[in-house]
Amino acid sequence: MSYFFLDGYEDMEMYSPGEQPQDRPYIKLNANESSYPPSPAILTALSQVQINSMSHYEDPYNKQIRKAIGDRYDFSPEQVFVGNGADEVIGFIMMSFFREGFNIASADITYDFYRTYAKTFHLNYIQIPLKDDFSIDVDKFVDVDSDIILPNPNNPIGKALPVSEIERIVAKDPKRLVIIDEAYIDYGADTCLPLVNKYSNLIVVQTFSKSRNMPGARIGFGIADKELIDEMRKVKFCVSPFNLNTLSQSIGIAAVNDTEYLKECTSRTIEIRRWMQDELMKDGYHVIPTLTNFVFFRVDHMPASLMAAKLKERGILIRHYDDERIKDYLRITIGTRAEMELVMKYIREIAEEYKKESMKKAS
Amino acid sequence: MSYFFLDGYEDMEMYSPGEQPQDRPYIKLNANESSYPPSPAILTALSQVQINSMSHYEDPYNKQIRKAIGDRYDFSPEQVFVGNGADEVIGFIMMSFFREGFNIASADITYDFYRTYAKTFHLNYIQIPLKDDFSIDVDKFVDVDSDIILPNPNNPIGKALPVSEIERIVAKDPKRLVIIDEAYIDYGADTCLPLVNKYSNLIVVQTFSKSRNMPGARIGFGIADKELIDEMRKVKFCVSPFNLNTLSQSIGIAAVNDTEYLKECTSRTIEIRRWMQDELMKDGYHVIPTLTNFVFFRVDHMPASLMAAKLKERGILIRHYDDERIKDYLRITIGTRAEMELVMKYIREIAEEYKKESMKKAS
Repeated sequence: MSYFFLDGYEDMEMYSPGEQPQDRPYIKLNANESSYPPSPAILTALSQVQINSMSHYEDPYNKQIRKAIGDRYDFSPEQVFVGNGADEVIGFIMMSFFREGFNIASADITYDFYRTYAKTFHLNYIQIPLKDDFSIDVDKFVDVDSDIILPNPNNPIGKALPVSEIERIVAKDPKRLVIIDEAYIDYGADTCLPLVNKYSNLIVVQTFSKSRNMPGARIGFGIADKELIDEMRKVKFCVSPFNLNTLSQSIGIAAVNDTEYLKECTSRTIEIRRWMQDELMKDGYHVIPTLTNFVFFRVDHMPASLMAAKLKERGILIRHYDDERIKDYLRITIGTRAEMELVMKYIREIAEEYKKESMKKAS
Repeated sequence: MSYFFLDGYEDMEMYSPGEQPQDRPYIKLNANESSYPPSPAILTALSQVQINSMSHYEDPYNKQIRKAIGDRYDFSPEQVFVGNGADEVIGFIMMSFFREGFNIASADITYDFYRTYAKTFHLNYIQIPLKDDFSIDVDKFVDVDSDIILPNPNNPIGKALPVSEIERIVAKDPKRLVIIDEAYIDYGADTCLPLVNKYSNLIVVQTFSKSRNMPGARIGFGIADKELIDEMRKVKFCVSPFNLNTLSQSIGIAAVNDTEYLKECTSRTIEIRRWMQDELMKDGYHVIPTLTNFVFFRVDHMPASLMAAKLKERGILIRHYDDERIKDYLRITIGTRAEMELVMKYIREIAEEYKKESMKKAS
């Protein structure tokens, strides 16, 4: 540790992104990325955009893309905050509304980054266990004396809460800030955006990294009461006023306007997800019902980590977690139909191999 | 103020970027942007880059662009940190090494954003006055009991310190962190990058926003001892791991490799700067010697703010500051030769008009 590194950071828990090994080509089904390219409208936007416009600073108020997003979801631009990825949006929420010692509650099994934020900003991170069926324990969230951050649908589980249940959590106490991370909302769950005009203690965060197939573009947004958004903007102007580059603003506008393409890609993903769940269930796997672009299922007949390792040997990256509660589960991103057929073929091969070897050992 | 906004933020001083009025087209000479387009190599990079690669998360370690920058300046990639603009690089320096109550010293007349950072992170901001000739008072910086952030050359003044003077500040105390912001270094001053291998308490920050003509791309970098860089990376991984999007990484690499084009653009700027300074001096203006892409000069015969307002009426945006010490000065970014000729023409017209009106009033 250098002389200068701040005390309290020694044991910081960095977020560990899905692995990106370079030793060979892999089919990456471990980071909930899409197998589809971004909207073709982007190409047009990029050729139309004078590349030369990069020689000027962009509008730090991000007026055009905030208007495009606002128009798309029926909010005024004043209710929209745009960030360099949803991570940065949540980062600015943390900087604006959370200080050392504040409480923030989430689920015990959820997007790991919330714990990282909590630790980084020295918050008390309250982990409320999922129920036995891996659904969010809404009653406990209603009662907890804490601000709340929850993904809906939940990652890596895949289950979603109905809007009415989220409303119970938000409505309980207007002095409780509730952040709902809707990264996976476009794959079939209901958005709680309509609650934003009713409650000024709710921030809904969405991203272009999932249903719009462009994690590499780093565009996320938050929608909330305009007072909250204005305060986040003030903090942004104190740390990184020009947080969204000119190209991202242009391609973001093109992407948000291409609702047709989003619908096409998400419908296809939902269809393949259904097929994949059916195949897994046919083989006897316990599959959690999901409204996301991934499936989450239990491997009973062999260690899940071994299944993941064997898939990796075959060039397929998927996600396995060491947490005790879900160590028997695997998360696989929904890729193309061909990719998923290959994954199923390998899963069957691997299961078969394991069975044969177990029998050999037993005999 | 919302119920949730943190105490202590009420009176935060946001950075005010150069104005970007939309009422008519302006020649923007108020934000030290370049009048030249980014490197043509970028176009190639953008068409070569599979736009489709945006459908995956980028490498959060930014390996390729860190290597390209390291190679360019003779450092290992481990000594390079890349950020979403130099602002974000400095933001991560603040988060990594500064905590409420720490001291940080800078000049009284300097890049305004340092004060914003200091206020945002609740630091004690020590402002050491420039000497009467507007140069940095090095002895005072050597002696001050504080970490230090200084731009070299200084903005909005334009003067630069020799490397040996910066070394005196850095060498004085290995427990003092010194951040040198070299945003304008490519316009003729000497970089203190060679000091980085000698001192582990020095971080040098540079940007692609000035000499590489691409503020809209948001690419900045810091070079320092690899331990400091590693600690900044850790903090980044806790807040915004994917801080540089795929397109910025690609075009950044293309731009950093095109040293020829950088040389061409900066030489041309330096030549036009010389012409502009000569013209201003011919007309009797007190011009501060500059090693940047702007000129800074005193207007004695009329209020400088009025000169700026009259230029704006004519479609030219330049920068005037209200600070008592420099309220008689104007900062004009060096644009193309044609732009500067137009500015000189208007400056002369405006001065002439003012003289006539004053004489009329007097008679």
